[in-house]
Amino acid sequence: MRQSHLFTKTRKEAPADEVSKNAEFLIRGGFIYKEMAGAYAFLPLGLRVLNKIMNIIREEMNAIGGQEIVMTSLQRPELWKSHFEQDRWDDKNVDNWFKTKLKDGGERGLAFTHEEPISNMLEQFVSSYRDLPFSVYQFQNKFRNEKRVQAGIMRTLEFIMKDLYSFSKNEAEHNIFYEKVKQAYINIFKRAGIGHITYLTFASGGVFSKFSHEFQTITPAGEDVIYINEENNIAINKEVFTDDVKKDLGLNGSFKEAKAVEVGNIFTLGTKFSKPHLVFEDETGKKNPVFMGSYGIGPARLMGVVVEVLSDDQGIIWPESIAPFQVHLLALANGEDEEILSYADKIYESLLKANIEVLFDDREGVSAGEKFADSDLLGIPLRAVVSERSLKEGGIELKKRAEEKGKIVSLPELLKLLKTDRALDSR
Amino acid sequence: MRQSHLFTKTRKEAPADEVSKNAEFLIRGGFIYKEMAGAYAFLPLGLRVLNKIMNIIREEMNAIGGQEIVMTSLQRPELWKSHFEQDRWDDKNVDNWFKTKLKDGGERGLAFTHEEPISNMLEQFVSSYRDLPFSVYQFQNKFRNEKRVQAGIMRTLEFIMKDLYSFSKNEAEHNIFYEKVKQAYINIFKRAGIGHITYLTFASGGVFSKFSHEFQTITPAGEDVIYINEENNIAINKEVFTDDVKKDLGLNGSFKEAKAVEVGNIFTLGTKFSKPHLVFEDETGKKNPVFMGSYGIGPARLMGVVVEVLSDDQGIIWPESIAPFQVHLLALANGEDEEILSYADKIYESLLKANIEVLFDDREGVSAGEKFADSDLLGIPLRAVVSERSLKEGGIELKKRAEEKGKIVSLPELLKLLKTDRALDSR
Repeated sequence: MRQSHLFTKTRKEAPADEVSKNAEFLIRGGFIYKEMAGAYAFLPLGLRVLNKIMNIIREEMNAIGGQEIVMTSLQRPELWKSHFEQDRWDDKNVDNWFKTKLKDGGERGLAFTHEEPISNMLEQFVSSYRDLPFSVYQFQNKFRNEKRVQAGIMRTLEFIMKDLYSFSKNEAEHNIFYEKVKQAYINIFKRAGIGHITYLTFASGGVFSKFSHEFQTITPAGEDVIYINEENNIAINKEVFTDDVKKDLGLNGSFKEAKAVEVGNIFTLGTKFSKPHLVFEDETGKKNPVFMGSYGIGPARLMGVVVEVLSDDQGIIWPESIAPFQVHLLALANGEDEEILSYADKIYESLLKANIEVLFDDREGVSAGEKFADSDLLGIPLRAVVSERSLKEGGIELKKRAEEKGKIVSLPELLKLLKTDRALDSR
Repeated sequence: MRQSHLFTKTRKEAPADEVSKNAEFLIRGGFIYKEMAGAYAFLPLGLRVLNKIMNIIREEMNAIGGQEIVMTSLQRPELWKSHFEQDRWDDKNVDNWFKTKLKDGGERGLAFTHEEPISNMLEQFVSSYRDLPFSVYQFQNKFRNEKRVQAGIMRTLEFIMKDLYSFSKNEAEHNIFYEKVKQAYINIFKRAGIGHITYLTFASGGVFSKFSHEFQTITPAGEDVIYINEENNIAINKEVFTDDVKKDLGLNGSFKEAKAVEVGNIFTLGTKFSKPHLVFEDETGKKNPVFMGSYGIGPARLMGVVVEVLSDDQGIIWPESIAPFQVHLLALANGEDEEILSYADKIYESLLKANIEVLFDDREGVSAGEKFADSDLLGIPLRAVVSERSLKEGGIELKKRAEEKGKIVSLPELLKLLKTDRALDSR
C-alpha cells in the first residue's frame, strides 16, 4: 500500500488522558482511534494486525476440530435467569452487564460471554452419545460494563473475543480435549511472538472448579501478579499462591514474582451449564448431562500485550507473523529526485508482483528524519530505504526494525530474501 | 468437511413462529439458529456463505480504493446530539436506538449507522485538499430497535453491515466516486447471483437530498414496491413514483409494478455531517466542509434475499460463488458396503487434495432418501453420489442442484470438471 493513500497519519503525541503504552503507540501510529474511554476503532494498519492474530487463532482452533459460528450480542433474560442452575442475569450476581430495552418494553442484555445461549442452542442438536464430543468457537464482540478502563486495548467495554466451547460425554473425554486446547494456546502465543514470556498459570477456578488455567504474559503493565516456577515452566496466580496449593500441585523449588497480564484462559465447566437441559442418551439409554469446557482469548488484548512487551522508546517492533506489512519501503528523494522515486516505484511494483506485503512511504514533502521516525513508530519488521546514498552504494539499504545496522542489497537479493523468509514462515 | 462431524443437523420443520421462507430453509438446513425474534446465530454452514458474500463485497470495495476499518458499537451522546448540525440522539428524531447505561451513570447508544463517529474521527486526519478524496468502509455489527421483525435474516435487531463512507473536496469529485460505487454494487449483486433481478432504483433522498439510489431485488417477500422501466433497466420506488419524478428523470415508456427488497443503498450526504467541524483548506487557503457520501449493504440480508429468490420447494439453490461448498459428496452404502464407503472416502480425499470445497455425507444409518432430501435442502450446486448403481455404471453420479438429470463421471473427470469451473470463476 502507498502511504500517501493511507488516510491515517502518525501523531507526535497521544491523547493526554491515555496512560497505557500500548494505546499511546497504537494511537500515535494510526493503528487505532480512541472513540471514548474503553472503546477503540481499528484503523487500516491496526485491522491488518488484528486480522493476522485472528487468523493464527482460527488456524489453531480448526486444527483441533473447532467449528466456527457467530452468535448474537443481544440476550434474552430467561436464559440467564433460570434456564440453567444459576442466575447470571441478576446484577447482584454479575456486575458488568450492559442492559437495554426493546421498543415493546422487553429487556435485553449484551452478552459478556456465551455459555448460556450456546448450551441452550445445542439442546436442539445433541441427543445421543453419537453426537459427542465436538467443539464450537466464534470471534464475537463482547460487551463488559467495566468501571476501570485504563489499559488501552487490553481492557475495554467492547472487544472481539475468541470463545471456544467443548462438549464431551464425560470428564475423561473432556480432559483429552482440554489438553489439546492447552497445546493450541501455547502454539498461538508462540506464533504471535510472546511465547518466551508467557506462562501456563494455575488460577482460581471460581465457582466452576478448584483451579482453572490461565496464560499470563510478563509485563510491568500487567494487572495480575504471578509466581513463576522456572524449572517446570509454570506459574501460580497470586490469588491462589499458598503453601497448600504448591503442595497440591507438587511444585517445589523457587518462585519468582512478576507482574503479568492474562492473555488466555481455559476452564473446565463440568455440567454447570448443561444441567438440567443439555443431556444425551448414553449407550445404555441413560440420560447424562454433557460435560463442558470454555476457552477464551481476546485478540485485541493480545495485540495490546505484544505492543507492551515488544517495543522500544521509538515505537513498536512487530513480530513478522502479525506485522501489518512485511516490508516498509522508504523513498528518500530530496526535492524532485526523479531517479530515486522511479527506482523506489520499480521496487514497490516488484514486491507487489511477488505477493509481498509492502507499505511504501512515497510521501512527498516529508523529511528523511520524519520518515525514519514514522518507520520506527509503525514497527514493520524490515525497512528498505532507497536514497541517493543507497543508490551510490549499489541498491537498497535494508535494516531490521530490531537491529541497529543495515546492509546494502540489490532488488533481486531483496526479493530472494523475502521469499526465503516466507517459505520458512509457512513451514 | 465430513457431515458426520458437523454438529448441526437438518430439521423437517422450521420453528412455528417463523413466517419467512429464508429463515425456514436456513433454519431447517442448520445454516442459522433463531436466538430470539429478530436475532439469529450463524452456524458453520451459514457462516461459510456469509463470509463468501463479505469477501465478494470486500474485493469490490478494495477495487475502488476503500480502506477497511472497524468502528465501535458503543456511542457517546454528545456526538449525535449537537456536534454536527442535526440531533440524531433524541428518540423523537431517531426511533430505533438501543440505549444503555455505563456503571458510572453515563449513557451510551448502540450504533445503527456511523456517519457521526466517522466524520468526527476524520477531523483528526483531514486538514488539506491534499488529504482528499478517499473512502473508508467496515463490516460492523449494527443494532436497530425495530418493532417489526418478521422477515427472517432480511430484517433483524442486530446485523452485520458493510458501510462505506466517501470524502471528497466537492460535488464534482464526489460524483465520480459515486459512479464507481454504483458499478461496484452492480458487480456485487451480479457475482452473488441476483444481478438479473436487481434494479438500480430511484428513491427518496430523505433529509439529505432529492433522490437516493437503492438496489432493489424483485421478490414476493419484498416490503417495497417498485416500478420497473425495462427499456432503461432502471426502477422507481413507489414512494417517489409520480409523473413529475418520471419527467425529472426523463423516463418515458411503460413501468411494471413489482414487490422488491432493498439490497443496497447509496447516498449523497453532501456536507450534512461535515459542517462545521470536518473541513479542509483548499489550494487558496479557504476552509471548506468535506463533501460526503454513504453506501450500505447488509451481507446477511443479501444472503436472505438469495434464499428467497433462488430456491424451489425442496430447498435452497446456492449460486456457486457463495455456496458453502462446491460439491456435496453422498455415500449411499446399504448396510456395511465397504466398497462404496472406501471409494467415497478416496474421492473425498482427492477433492480435498485438489483444494475443492466438499461436504461429504458420510453419515451411517441414514437412508438414501434422507440424504437426497438433505442435499436438496442444503442446496450445494453440485451433487456427487457414490452408490452401488453408480459404481456399476462406472463411477460417480453427478447432478447439478438446479437440474433434473445427472450423468456418470469418473474421478479424474470430476476433478477436471471442478478445476475448470474454478478457473472460469476466477476470471
